[in-house]
Amino acid sequence: MDYAKESIKLHKKLAWKIETISKVRLKNKIDLSLAYTPWVAEPCLEIAKDKKKVYDYTIKGNTIAVISDGTAVLGLGDIGPEASLPVMEWKCVLFKQFGWVNAFPIVLDTKNTEEIIKTIKLISPWFWWINLEDISAPRCFEIEQRLIEELDIPVFHDDQHGTAIVVLAGIINGLKITKKKKEEVKVIINGVGAAGVAIAKLLLHYGIKDIVMVDTVGTIYKWREWLNPVKEMLTDMTNTACILDPNSKSCIKWWLQEAMEGRDIFIWVSKWNIVSKKMVESMNKDPMIFAMANPTPEISPDLAYEAGAKIVATGRSDYPNQLNNVLVFPWIFAWALKNKVKKITDEMKINAAKNLAEYVKNPNPKKIIPSPFDKGVAKVVAKAIKE
Amino acid sequence: MDYAKESIKLHKKLAWKIETISKVRLKNKIDLSLAYTPWVAEPCLEIAKDKKKVYDYTIKGNTIAVISDGTAVLGLGDIGPEASLPVMEWKCVLFKQFGWVNAFPIVLDTKNTEEIIKTIKLISPWFWWINLEDISAPRCFEIEQRLIEELDIPVFHDDQHGTAIVVLAGIINGLKITKKKKEEVKVIINGVGAAGVAIAKLLLHYGIKDIVMVDTVGTIYKWREWLNPVKEMLTDMTNTACILDPNSKSCIKWWLQEAMEGRDIFIWVSKWNIVSKKMVESMNKDPMIFAMANPTPEISPDLAYEAGAKIVATGRSDYPNQLNNVLVFPWIFAWALKNKVKKITDEMKINAAKNLAEYVKNPNPKKIIPSPFDKGVAKVVAKAIKE
Repeated sequence: MDYAKESIKLHKKLAWKIETISKVRLKNKIDLSLAYTPWVAEPCLEIAKDKKKVYDYTIKGNTIAVISDGTAVLGLGDIGPEASLPVMEWKCVLFKQFGWVNAFPIVLDTKNTEEIIKTIKLISPWFWWINLEDISAPRCFEIEQRLIEELDIPVFHDDQHGTAIVVLAGIINGLKITKKKKEEVKVIINGVGAAGVAIAKLLLHYGIKDIVMVDTVGTIYKWREWLNPVKEMLTDMTNTACILDPNSKSCIKWWLQEAMEGRDIFIWVSKWNIVSKKMVESMNKDPMIFAMANPTPEISPDLAYEAGAKIVATGRSDYPNQLNNVLVFPWIFAWALKNKVKKITDEMKINAAKNLAEYVKNPNPKKIIPSPFDKGVAKVVAKAIKE
Repeated sequence: MDYAKESIKLHKKLAWKIETISKVRLKNKIDLSLAYTPWVAEPCLEIAKDKKKVYDYTIKGNTIAVISDGTAVLGLGDIGPEASLPVMEWKCVLFKQFGWVNAFPIVLDTKNTEEIIKTIKLISPWFWWINLEDISAPRCFEIEQRLIEELDIPVFHDDQHGTAIVVLAGIINGLKITKKKKEEVKVIINGVGAAGVAIAKLLLHYGIKDIVMVDTVGTIYKWREWLNPVKEMLTDMTNTACILDPNSKSCIKWWLQEAMEGRDIFIWVSKWNIVSKKMVESMNKDPMIFAMANPTPEISPDLAYEAGAKIVATGRSDYPNQLNNVLVFPWIFAWALKNKVKKITDEMKINAAKNLAEYVKNPNPKKIIPSPFDKGVAKVVAKAIKE
């Protein structure tokens, strides 16, 4: 099957993939007078008296806005709001199919951080939860943080937290298979964007100690010049050699190949660089390769296995071990909505990852993570919220 | 039936009255890979290359945004965005039920004209048509005009144009019943907001010559001080006595009662003032009273008839002669969408009104306008767009 061609065909046929439907049919003048003019005035006045009642009388309590500026779409980068719309739409489809939640796509015609924050605030009265999507780093961190502080509705940047949860779930099972310990395992993350930073934070929180992060320049280490505030913060948490001995030269690597030597787990969440067979060969025994770029993984699974990889995972649904947020976001939101949870804590995230890992009864190199179509996966994520 | 109570009950039960559903169900990994990652990248890249293709691959081509700031809701005035949400939601329900169009409600947490314009522009990439709603005058005129100029998608302020079309339809049949001529009939419009101004313009365009407009101060006439630019413009088109003779005192009326004397048609689209029996009695023989305030008409139909009114129409669905935009907006939009019409011209509006009037086979004082539930009404409005 020519997937690219099939996808275009599907998208042409299903351009209007989301429909807004009404749960009621107004049958006569009485219906119309109760629902619309004049008597709609009653709930309006109730809400005018007490804003909180908007949850009682409107869709707000069941509506998620999937918001993007189109600057970091899949592995495609900054393709603009219009071009990012199909991704947002399908995200809404997935919210509905897997999480029974109403979601609506909103794409913004601006890349300006302040304008994005302001616009989202101004349109916020009609939705309950904001799912930020495909906004490039480091702006995404500030946008998420500011919105959390300035709005009284929950904000969740799925590219960060959803991705971190599925990656951690995969690692938990990967460690079981390779019989390595979280305290000893050496991780390298290539890409210091939304996903990379969130993954690093969650892995550290889970108990992994040794993480090295790499951007287009080389490893992130203390005293490197021109670091943005987010990377600056990472120098206190990653690249242990540098933290222990600021004068150590061993934490400074300009080439990805060098940085990969002797590592156990490789997580790739950047659209830059390509992984060669040689690089994988230089890693510790039984390495795990998480090549997450979409649509094209940084190294083909076949090549990675040839080079000695024990486990290969990608972001794609047509390979085994798909690390896709769709395992997380519909259910996290559905349960947060149901239980009126206003914030997804780190504990919830770790629990979700543990539960997803445990769902796989006999983890093996070709099955470290459930499929979103597996029965009961929703429940294990839901349990994480309730715990 | 206690309508107020019933409405509250209905709105509590149907809080989530609109649902976003997906037209597809993804059944397996192949479906997921084609629709979502990785192959969704294909339509994304196509749109990135040519923005216009967003119509081919997304919901944009079939999505209307119903946008309000909650400043002029029904007859309730400025009740805020949250409180206006039920009206916007039902409007979307009506769009779907009567016009088969997808509409989504957006309420804005600002009253600032520039912020409203900017916000709408920034969120515009994902919808095809803007239906402005319940935004107070005179800001609504500037917002509509500026958006028309600055965006390349259609903009329609239904409170203006939808209302004007149904009122004109009612008048066309009212003139038939009372055997009066459009060139001779004397009209008074109380309320110089969105609806009042649009009605005046459309009636003049239709061929009615003598219109007097009244605001909270009195009649609008040339040389009156402190007029806003919209009222200033109206002095060139209304209050004929003043246009003919600027020194005439006869066009200056400070009291509504005075202004109503000797008029044939009274159109009330303001939340101010109440109409007394005496006022109606002072009008010409067989007057038409259009008392449009929601939820409470400015004079009860019974009282108006007692005072000699030949025809009484209101905005309510529980009285005869309901002049409600729902007769117009779903179908206007549906047909504009279908025929890729980018602007609703005055000719289309007048045709829509004429067709609506003609739809009523034997107009009589209790039936000057079709009901939205009448079969085939959609077609007569659609014809206006095609003509």
